[in-house]
Amino acid sequence: MKSAAMKVSKPRAAQAMAGLRKGTPHHLVARVGANFPSSGQRTRAERSMTTGTVATMAVAEGAGTFTSEVFDVENVSLAGCEESILRGGRDKFGLLKDAFEGVKTIGVVGWGSQGPAQAQNIRDSIEAAGLSGDISVKIGLRKGRPSWEEAVECGFTEQDGTLGEVFDVVAESDLLLLLISDGAQASLYPRVLAAMKPGSTLGLSHGFLLGVMKNDGVDFREDINVVLVAPKGMGPSVRRLYEQGKEVNGAGINASFAVHQDYTGRATEVALGWSIALGSPFTFRTTLESEYKSDIYGERCVILGAVHGIVESLFRRYEAQGMSEEDAFVNSVESITGPINSIISKKGMKALYEGLDAEGKETFMKAYSAAFKPSMDICYEIYEDVACGNEIKSVVNATNRFDRFPMGKIDQTRMWKIGDKVRAKRVESEIPINPFTAGVYVANMMATLQTLREKGHQWSEICNESIIEAVDSLNPYMHARGVAFMVDNCSFTARLGSRKWGPRFDYILDQQAYVAVDNGQQVDEELKTEFLNHDVHAALAVCSELRPSVDISVSTGEAVGAGKARTEYKSSKANA
Amino acid sequence: MKSAAMKVSKPRAAQAMAGLRKGTPHHLVARVGANFPSSGQRTRAERSMTTGTVATMAVAEGAGTFTSEVFDVENVSLAGCEESILRGGRDKFGLLKDAFEGVKTIGVVGWGSQGPAQAQNIRDSIEAAGLSGDISVKIGLRKGRPSWEEAVECGFTEQDGTLGEVFDVVAESDLLLLLISDGAQASLYPRVLAAMKPGSTLGLSHGFLLGVMKNDGVDFREDINVVLVAPKGMGPSVRRLYEQGKEVNGAGINASFAVHQDYTGRATEVALGWSIALGSPFTFRTTLESEYKSDIYGERCVILGAVHGIVESLFRRYEAQGMSEEDAFVNSVESITGPINSIISKKGMKALYEGLDAEGKETFMKAYSAAFKPSMDICYEIYEDVACGNEIKSVVNATNRFDRFPMGKIDQTRMWKIGDKVRAKRVESEIPINPFTAGVYVANMMATLQTLREKGHQWSEICNESIIEAVDSLNPYMHARGVAFMVDNCSFTARLGSRKWGPRFDYILDQQAYVAVDNGQQVDEELKTEFLNHDVHAALAVCSELRPSVDISVSTGEAVGAGKARTEYKSSKANA
Repeated sequence: MKSAAMKVSKPRAAQAMAGLRKGTPHHLVARVGANFPSSGQRTRAERSMTTGTVATMAVAEGAGTFTSEVFDVENVSLAGCEESILRGGRDKFGLLKDAFEGVKTIGVVGWGSQGPAQAQNIRDSIEAAGLSGDISVKIGLRKGRPSWEEAVECGFTEQDGTLGEVFDVVAESDLLLLLISDGAQASLYPRVLAAMKPGSTLGLSHGFLLGVMKNDGVDFREDINVVLVAPKGMGPSVRRLYEQGKEVNGAGINASFAVHQDYTGRATEVALGWSIALGSPFTFRTTLESEYKSDIYGERCVILGAVHGIVESLFRRYEAQGMSEEDAFVNSVESITGPINSIISKKGMKALYEGLDAEGKETFMKAYSAAFKPSMDICYEIYEDVACGNEIKSVVNATNRFDRFPMGKIDQTRMWKIGDKVRAKRVESEIPINPFTAGVYVANMMATLQTLREKGHQWSEICNESIIEAVDSLNPYMHARGVAFMVDNCSFTARLGSRKWGPRFDYILDQQAYVAVDNGQQVDEELKTEFLNHDVHAALAVCSELRPSVDISVSTGEAVGAGKARTEYKSSKANA
Repeated sequence: MKSAAMKVSKPRAAQAMAGLRKGTPHHLVARVGANFPSSGQRTRAERSMTTGTVATMAVAEGAGTFTSEVFDVENVSLAGCEESILRGGRDKFGLLKDAFEGVKTIGVVGWGSQGPAQAQNIRDSIEAAGLSGDISVKIGLRKGRPSWEEAVECGFTEQDGTLGEVFDVVAESDLLLLLISDGAQASLYPRVLAAMKPGSTLGLSHGFLLGVMKNDGVDFREDINVVLVAPKGMGPSVRRLYEQGKEVNGAGINASFAVHQDYTGRATEVALGWSIALGSPFTFRTTLESEYKSDIYGERCVILGAVHGIVESLFRRYEAQGMSEEDAFVNSVESITGPINSIISKKGMKALYEGLDAEGKETFMKAYSAAFKPSMDICYEIYEDVACGNEIKSVVNATNRFDRFPMGKIDQTRMWKIGDKVRAKRVESEIPINPFTAGVYVANMMATLQTLREKGHQWSEICNESIIEAVDSLNPYMHARGVAFMVDNCSFTARLGSRKWGPRFDYILDQQAYVAVDNGQQVDEELKTEFLNHDVHAALAVCSELRPSVDISVSTGEAVGAGKARTEYKSSKANA
């Protein structure tokens, strides 16, 4: 998921910041909350999840670790796998001078979700560091577009040299943040790259462009650095939490960073400086490739596409079993976005299961047993379609068709109209945990993350792209106003992917999982054991400790309403 | 659709062979049946179907015409577009000597659907032409596999030099028919190409391999001919109708042919000779690229994928509107595979509409108006995903996952169980034409063919890949035993594509078309006019005249039952 992850206000028990010791690799395990299983409970689940797992498991040793000459880096152990993190905070701003050595102009091109937020945060951080005279943040836009005026309102002006035409800014920048939409990047990148200064740094907040360039069979020019800092939340959150961070310690949005090409030898420091200047409380390491694969994949799976398909299939099933249409909605959508989501967010997936009574546990596990493998089937298909470039090519094709075939509404069907009625009289505390629903949903979440694990992703990325974004960022949108409010507040890439893959999960669950349950298929004891002992529970517990200390509530106002064009769209228009 | 098109026995009124005059280009229009509109009724539909149509319309002039030095070629006009056809028949066997000049060994590699049929037909034709001493047909298989014994039972033996190891046969062949499965072709083609003789001819029955090689960024070696002859029916039909053709004039399966690479200058004659030797009553011209695009696209649209999605969405809708489950099945599946299919096959789509009463016409056209554009949306997505290589790459990925994720059953859900009950007490003549169902189905068929037309395909190919195969070959399978009997009797490429895209049509119809109708959206008069005056009606009438004179009934026996592995699978195993 890119740029859609507004953090949501949920009381999360036992999630104080972990006391991490610095620089003691291999022995550093975050203090875990009381409700999470200890991350020390390492199991063999990773090695025996399903046939074939072992052969495809290939997490690169040290993939998530890094060092810095400027910043102190800490190490954490996630279910036995070592990852490095950089802790942020305003006390680190003093190091920006060293991190940005040689950088005089930070250009920000694009005024969508991330552009305004990142530009303002960096400008404020530079000022706080007393570097305003040395480094300037300059916005690159097209004169005459509405975004130009918005930038002026934010204090970027032609007069003081902090606002200019796109390609002028590209050519002047020592660090160029390319924050235009995926589609605009796909069409504009040759001109942008050609205009950059030798020795400058290209900064991306999504690896999508690398996927486009792979499809096109071209590489980045060799005489630039290429780095990524990807905040795990949408732009407005990045800005709002930064402002709160001026008073509240630890406020901000976590980010991942990557160094794809290090021409000057300073790419890591520049990237980490960027993340610190944004206000990221914690910065994890990834790669451009790993980032775009897990991001584009995750939003097609449980984060958006799969959860849509799941609730459509469950709603149908419950109605066919005789529930009233409102009860069917409550037991499918409401159950997931309400109590199931809340428990996973606070205590993890295993606690959800363990909180059920004996009958509930049995129902959960039958549903889980039947739904896991069909979910894996589609997850694997999506992952491989993303990894080989198909999904990115499809997205580029689709955006080229928008004039003739704009995306239609997905929430005007009977089911979602019933949802309006259900929400109108909702009593939050009365929403039930339907154990069948929980079993199907958790099976899909496990399939989403297990596929990422088998494909070699590291735990911090896995937890973010299959659990944390789902329960803390996206599901609350569906809870607030239905499926379109969740899906259509995301990027085009995400919205297209959700429309494409949601129906696949629906059909395969209906054709295989529910049929198996109805035919009396019993609990798969091996799958059950593997679920209960899976490494993810420990990894998630540690990741939860590293969440920012301040959350943001979902707005239910019209301003970011369902089906509204995303700000990213404006960016595309403004810069294409 | 590849290899799945068993022609089905349907009395077709007024479909005697057309009296075609030879060699009079531009003025040759086939005599049309009484129930079809005259092909002379050319309209402007092609130029005004929807906004943007004109810009993307690019049917190459003369794309479907060809000449031959050996055979007499006839010309027909399809809705004003000229195409050449080669009429087959046993009286042409005397020309095989000239067509196959320089060809001493015709190798047939693969023993799936097409292999046994084509090998035996060609051997018989060569013998009938008195060329047995000059040309031999030799089968290439792996010794010890069951297919080896089957070939021996068909009279191909090591002793007389007509059976050998795969790569020995490849190396000996002057004309090599590569009839292994799509997946096997994708993995084996480098070895096959490397083993071929300079100056020999590679013969394909599907353009899939070209798509694979495009994705791999490689070309065919330059010192061979590359041709295609693609019978429009599965292998057993190709064989059975050939045998009937010994007594009945015109029996056989039509084919398309293509010359992709003509190294020796004789590729066209060799390809046409191959088609004549197979017993094709009529041979149309295409290209490898056009063939694989239209074939892979068509089976994902109305021929398999879309019709599955349509009936699932309609069944749900009718049940929600209060129909009994059996009535809902009758009004969705039965209505399409029964009377709607029959009328389109005999008289065309327009006659289906015109046969309705006033109220039925209104309902049909409301459904048509609402369903056409959403259907076009998905059709375009599929076409472009096929054309850019995505679908082929996905199929190759999926076949590599089969050991872990074999395809599951699609007909064990409640809906299809109801279908079993409905069929058990079916009275064919009592199946109603549901006008809403008819409107949705025809809208989808029109979207399927309109997209092909806008993408530049010629009428003979369009009519085959969007109408004729659907109504004469595939729907009768669903009519006989349900959706899996239709889908899973097809190739892996088709089965995967149907599973992938069917749900998309279901969702978009539900989310957009049915919502529009329920919100009171009225008939779109422009779409109505365009439908009623569309060129396809005339083109289809001519194509119908060129159908073979003998059809085959669908077997409902277990031997080719639903969910059974296709013979093509055996081919893959035998040769991979």
